[in-house]
Amino acid sequence: MSDTATTREQCEARDRGDPLARFRALFDLPADVIYLDGNSLGPPTFASRAAVQRGVADEWGRGLIRSWNDAGWIDLPRKVGARIAPLIGAAAGEVIAGDSTSVNLFKLLSAALQLQAGVGASGRSKIVSERSNFPTDLYIAEGLVHQLGGRHQLILVDEPSQIPAVLDETVAVLMLTHVNYRSGYMHDLAALTRAAHEVGALVVWDLAHSAGAVPLDLAAAHADFAVGCGYKFLNGGPGAPAYLYVAERHQAGFCQPLSGWFGHAQPFAFEPSYRPANDVARYLCGTPPVLSMLALDAALEPWAEIDMAELRRKSLSLTDLFIELVEQRCSAHPLTLVTPREHGVRGSQVSFAHEHAFPIMQALIARGVIGDFRAPDILRFGCTPLYLDHVDVWRAVDILADLLDTGAWHAAQFNVRHAVT
Amino acid sequence: MSDTATTREQCEARDRGDPLARFRALFDLPADVIYLDGNSLGPPTFASRAAVQRGVADEWGRGLIRSWNDAGWIDLPRKVGARIAPLIGAAAGEVIAGDSTSVNLFKLLSAALQLQAGVGASGRSKIVSERSNFPTDLYIAEGLVHQLGGRHQLILVDEPSQIPAVLDETVAVLMLTHVNYRSGYMHDLAALTRAAHEVGALVVWDLAHSAGAVPLDLAAAHADFAVGCGYKFLNGGPGAPAYLYVAERHQAGFCQPLSGWFGHAQPFAFEPSYRPANDVARYLCGTPPVLSMLALDAALEPWAEIDMAELRRKSLSLTDLFIELVEQRCSAHPLTLVTPREHGVRGSQVSFAHEHAFPIMQALIARGVIGDFRAPDILRFGCTPLYLDHVDVWRAVDILADLLDTGAWHAAQFNVRHAVT
Repeated sequence: MSDTATTREQCEARDRGDPLARFRALFDLPADVIYLDGNSLGPPTFASRAAVQRGVADEWGRGLIRSWNDAGWIDLPRKVGARIAPLIGAAAGEVIAGDSTSVNLFKLLSAALQLQAGVGASGRSKIVSERSNFPTDLYIAEGLVHQLGGRHQLILVDEPSQIPAVLDETVAVLMLTHVNYRSGYMHDLAALTRAAHEVGALVVWDLAHSAGAVPLDLAAAHADFAVGCGYKFLNGGPGAPAYLYVAERHQAGFCQPLSGWFGHAQPFAFEPSYRPANDVARYLCGTPPVLSMLALDAALEPWAEIDMAELRRKSLSLTDLFIELVEQRCSAHPLTLVTPREHGVRGSQVSFAHEHAFPIMQALIARGVIGDFRAPDILRFGCTPLYLDHVDVWRAVDILADLLDTGAWHAAQFNVRHAVT
Repeated sequence: MSDTATTREQCEARDRGDPLARFRALFDLPADVIYLDGNSLGPPTFASRAAVQRGVADEWGRGLIRSWNDAGWIDLPRKVGARIAPLIGAAAGEVIAGDSTSVNLFKLLSAALQLQAGVGASGRSKIVSERSNFPTDLYIAEGLVHQLGGRHQLILVDEPSQIPAVLDETVAVLMLTHVNYRSGYMHDLAALTRAAHEVGALVVWDLAHSAGAVPLDLAAAHADFAVGCGYKFLNGGPGAPAYLYVAERHQAGFCQPLSGWFGHAQPFAFEPSYRPANDVARYLCGTPPVLSMLALDAALEPWAEIDMAELRRKSLSLTDLFIELVEQRCSAHPLTLVTPREHGVRGSQVSFAHEHAFPIMQALIARGVIGDFRAPDILRFGCTPLYLDHVDVWRAVDILADLLDTGAWHAAQFNVRHAVT
């Protein structure tokens, strides 16, 4: 350790008076783990555990079918949407929960293309995105383009800086993930939305790595559409239902193709023809997975008390510290910072490239520091302010430095591991 | 009660020696309820309750992200599919679980239309179904037809008997629900599949009210595609993941449009382009709802020991008894049997029409007999042989007769109730 390295005591000092410290007690975290993978799968809150247990034993077990009404299952997609809305700067009636992020993206991308076709802009054939976007977003766009008969093209840029130049009158939709899953790079949501609107394009944002991690204001950005994930920073549980946002002004104009009964104006009238609900509920499809939704619903409750500016301050403090400590403690090793240093374009994670990222991450996990490997060479560390503090970061980097200095990672067990981003 | 009415003692005699009686102990059912709504939402097994509790506390809480591998979450869609396969007469590699029935139907209907387009049959523009099909199936077909630009037409027949006559060279897909949700009428799956194939049409079956209720043999019927529901006779919990079946011969020929990352050949390689898995996994889309999937997985385990012929015998015995008792005990009241008397075309429910079906069902529920109301005038009673016996049916009809004879149903509390079929 160099003489100037930040000490554990200094980290303890930073943790004193942390206004978010009280939230850690809500989480059921193993004592022997430093969990830096909350951007892949957030940990359970005790409230989620209780809600699921009650959901199975009482609501399902005692209430049976009656619980669709009596326990409010039927309202869960709206209720959960309303809890998420303030986290993304939306109105309660603009967000609804259900299905997966991929399925929701299909709905919104279909809707956006349909809106663009509707205004007679026959020249608008392009969907613009980034090659580094989370792959499922690109796969969904490919599937939709294919289904629509190849009238559209998916245009992928290699760098965020190239986006403005490709925006022109031929672009129907700009489809971006706000915070990049590998690098942690964060787009300027408002500026890109404005740039797209200036050429008449619509924007679909994927907020998977943003909601619950960075402040968002979709209303101020005049955003069109967004999707997001329930199981990362929102801690909704493995494969938790996702959500989607449709600006109020876009809701009534069209239908999405996954027009299942939960999106019908009167699902229980059992009419043979589809009549969409007159609000965001028309973006629902089939019956939602209630048990998974209950876990997400309970996990969202504390967010009403969380000051997003406070959360952002702590997030940046944690990621700054992570970068600082790695540079102080691991400078003898070939780690390359991938995450931007500039606060304005950084999400809530820190990623480093290392040729041997895979075995190093395996060795870290074996020592209780759970981050994520992202092919081909990324060590990714999610910094989640609700249950992590500066001492956690100090301990994580201390173990990383030890593994690198001693070369102990060479000896780690290298099991192939699939992680869900 | 007429002198010739079947007695409770006779029902008790029928229950003695019931080879399926031992399965009732697997279910967590309230003592004060006769549950005749297992075709809407099956009750929890104790095993599901334990699996979900373990899933939240241990797998999610202790294992965190590691449980995708260590607890086998990543394999759940295939594992659950393999458990369902023998119940529908499919091979393990032909069935996969995930998403909702509606979303899965969209995938398969898209796939079927794409296959039909691929063989150059430009004249095949029709999707044939029934007006009485479960509405979400029709809504999904409408959404898809709209998405594909109106090149297809949805043709709805009013009676099952009309189906053969509309099958001709213009039909791309026949889309039917095997057992009707209101009437309990059961189609001849093999004969209709054969009739469709004879004119070159493909068939998509919805098995929501069939799997776990009646014997099915998709292989023998040379079936093409099927979807089904996890939360009815399979007891997977509210909004449990659905499943889909694709005959092995159809799997490699094309992609479905909801091409999310879980259907990719290598989801964790994070490639920017979609490459479908080379098997039924290509019908997956986004991350599955694990907690809900764990409940379904555990609920399916006992089915390996269940003899479907035995189940069918008991199911018919229960529905026969229900009809017989209603005719003996309620003949003074205007109840009209809607479910077919003929065994060959009857599913595992009994439905009666009555002008005041809604308040009568409310009154039944208030007395602990939980069936379902289906607009506008249907009293629906699901007969699930795993946890119901002949005495349950006797008691249910005894209460129905009492409500009708005394007119007590007039006084019932009439809360609007949404039930999920």
